Amino acid sequence: MSVTATTSQSLDQPAATPLAAEIARIYGTPAVVIDLDIVEANIARLQAACDAAGVANRPHIKTHKSPVLARLQVEAGARGITCQKLGEAEVMADGGLDDILISYNILGEEKLGRLGALQRRVRMIVAADNPVTISGLPRAAEIAGRDLEVVIECDTGRKRAGVETPGEAVELAKMVAASPGLRFAGFLMYPPENGWERTQTFLDTANAGLHDAGLKADIVSTGGSPNIPNIGKLKGATEHRAGTSIFNDRMQVAAGVATLENCALNVYATVVSRAAPERGILDAGSKTLTSDVGGLDGHGLILEYPRARIAQFAEEHGFLDLSGTNERPVVGEVVRIVPNHVCVVVNMVDRLITVRGDKLVGELPVAARGKLT
Amino acid sequence: MSVTATTSQSLDQPAATPLAAEIARIYGTPAVVIDLDIVEANIARLQAACDAAGVANRPHIKTHKSPVLARLQVEAGARGITCQKLGEAEVMADGGLDDILISYNILGEEKLGRLGALQRRVRMIVAADNPVTISGLPRAAEIAGRDLEVVIECDTGRKRAGVETPGEAVELAKMVAASPGLRFAGFLMYPPENGWERTQTFLDTANAGLHDAGLKADIVSTGGSPNIPNIGKLKGATEHRAGTSIFNDRMQVAAGVATLENCALNVYATVVSRAAPERGILDAGSKTLTSDVGGLDGHGLILEYPRARIAQFAEEHGFLDLSGTNERPVVGEVVRIVPNHVCVVVNMVDRLITVRGDKLVGELPVAARGKLT
Repeated sequence: MSVTATTSQSLDQPAATPLAAEIARIYGTPAVVIDLDIVEANIARLQAACDAAGVANRPHIKTHKSPVLARLQVEAGARGITCQKLGEAEVMADGGLDDILISYNILGEEKLGRLGALQRRVRMIVAADNPVTISGLPRAAEIAGRDLEVVIECDTGRKRAGVETPGEAVELAKMVAASPGLRFAGFLMYPPENGWERTQTFLDTANAGLHDAGLKADIVSTGGSPNIPNIGKLKGATEHRAGTSIFNDRMQVAAGVATLENCALNVYATVVSRAAPERGILDAGSKTLTSDVGGLDGHGLILEYPRARIAQFAEEHGFLDLSGTNERPVVGEVVRIVPNHVCVVVNMVDRLITVRGDKLVGELPVAARGKLT
Repeated sequence: MSVTATTSQSLDQPAATPLAAEIARIYGTPAVVIDLDIVEANIARLQAACDAAGVANRPHIKTHKSPVLARLQVEAGARGITCQKLGEAEVMADGGLDDILISYNILGEEKLGRLGALQRRVRMIVAADNPVTISGLPRAAEIAGRDLEVVIECDTGRKRAGVETPGEAVELAKMVAASPGLRFAGFLMYPPENGWERTQTFLDTANAGLHDAGLKADIVSTGGSPNIPNIGKLKGATEHRAGTSIFNDRMQVAAGVATLENCALNVYATVVSRAAPERGILDAGSKTLTSDVGGLDGHGLILEYPRARIAQFAEEHGFLDLSGTNERPVVGEVVRIVPNHVCVVVNMVDRLITVRGDKLVGELPVAARGKLT
């Protein structure tokens, strides 16, 4: 290490682009930055895919958690939105959104009270996959003073939530239809990318059972950004829920449904240490980029140093393995990272910094961040 | 699945303890809960370990991010506190804390300006492991109008930040001493749990080099909760930085430095789905418990069902593998989880719910949550 006792050094940080230097100078790093031009193109592309398939677009706001961006999605043609948590739906309703599907079992007196209050204000649809959930939902409808729409969550291979058989789905549909204040609205599905035939068989069998019971599924909702190329594949589907595609990330690129140019979100980080030639430290660790690895090698792609590997994390340290690259950043340098999983990164920050191309625009609050309940 | 069309079901959620039922009823789940009795005992135990070794206690606030808890630590005898980010230090200073070590390289005009402003208010010590960092720090001292204390970060085996040799440490100490507005204060170390001999050799060699240069290390700071049993092992150490021990977690238990009874933080979660006999879904996923696995099997310990395995996460789903347990929770049931890594869990939430034993106390804001910069 060569040590020079100078104090006249410029405080500007070296960066690959003037914008990166500007963001570091104004906000410091790490900074979570979205390009609104790319965001708008991503919104339009999802809407076009839904339009082409004749399926309604109900984007999942879990990725951006911003009523401002949700309104952009609705203005582009989305029928409504999807939330995973009641607290997210409350923030969206406060932000002027309506027609909100919560794709999750809602349980317990505290949540049912809030759901009822929310349904007084906006159209709510909720999911259920079991009798306990369904038996509580009339309480929400009672508070709302009007019927609550319920979709039955069906599992066709992910082994997450959702009944495993069409027979169970029909039984729960009948239970909803027989419950005071509830209206059976249809089915919620999240088909595995390679599970569309199985999902079709499930749906057809469930629909036949509904028919026998004098019921009908007005909504058949499919989900997933990796499923965007499959929108319309399921005969009878009425709408699709995609979240990640508004920003995209390294996982979407790996899945072949986005390119790096479609990735709207970068984490700008500074190299804060280079204690040895073949390694370095970024000021973004698991409290910024999170430990979600998503089955990929390394914890993100550094655009300026694609052969550098983010090998591991401490909470505020990203461990750079530079052994595979001759191009190596210096201490103080600002780099841009495409994260593996963008949804969890957005959830770490209270605001996103917004840009358009090489111009800084401003800030956008992540208004529904951290809404656990 | 047996479906009963009843709507007269109680909305109370089954729970192992009345307190768990009460927290679910008031706050909903997931809820991140700390027991203040255990917190206070953990604070006292760390202070006693430092006192017994004749080493000052400078706890790391990264774990709790609360000025209220930091003040408890100082009232128990801590000399000062440690922060990883400038934004954390600002929140702590606002909360009345003084004598703050930032154990991190601070770079860039934006941060140096804030550091200078902060140093006008409180005693600040910062770490550096390279000449670029040191060359910027006089700017902060200039803004503060008084000398800034700098410790040189030394690596003795973790391969994170820190110079790798005593010679580099001494060279940087001399650079600090020669810089206007800076005062060389000592060394920052984070010895691997099995690396104390190497650390001793490093320190002794560096101290000899300092002596030759007419310098002296007033501070020799060691770190780590797993190192609490090793406090005092390094001859010449003056203080210790431990973070996690205020709450503890499954990793600390696995490391043998805490018991389950010392774990002050539980995540209360609800079982929201039981689609098949051998599996279930918790309403706490990677956006609550995080994907930090910490080298352990599973993503947390369920106190009521220790043989249930939290096998994987989606963002808001915890996948329960119940194949290894005959005791299985029902839908709607509230369970308590000891997380693998508590520091990242606290950073997900804006408030902690506080209890003492079986009594609910109130809430505590995580005031320095999400302070990335």
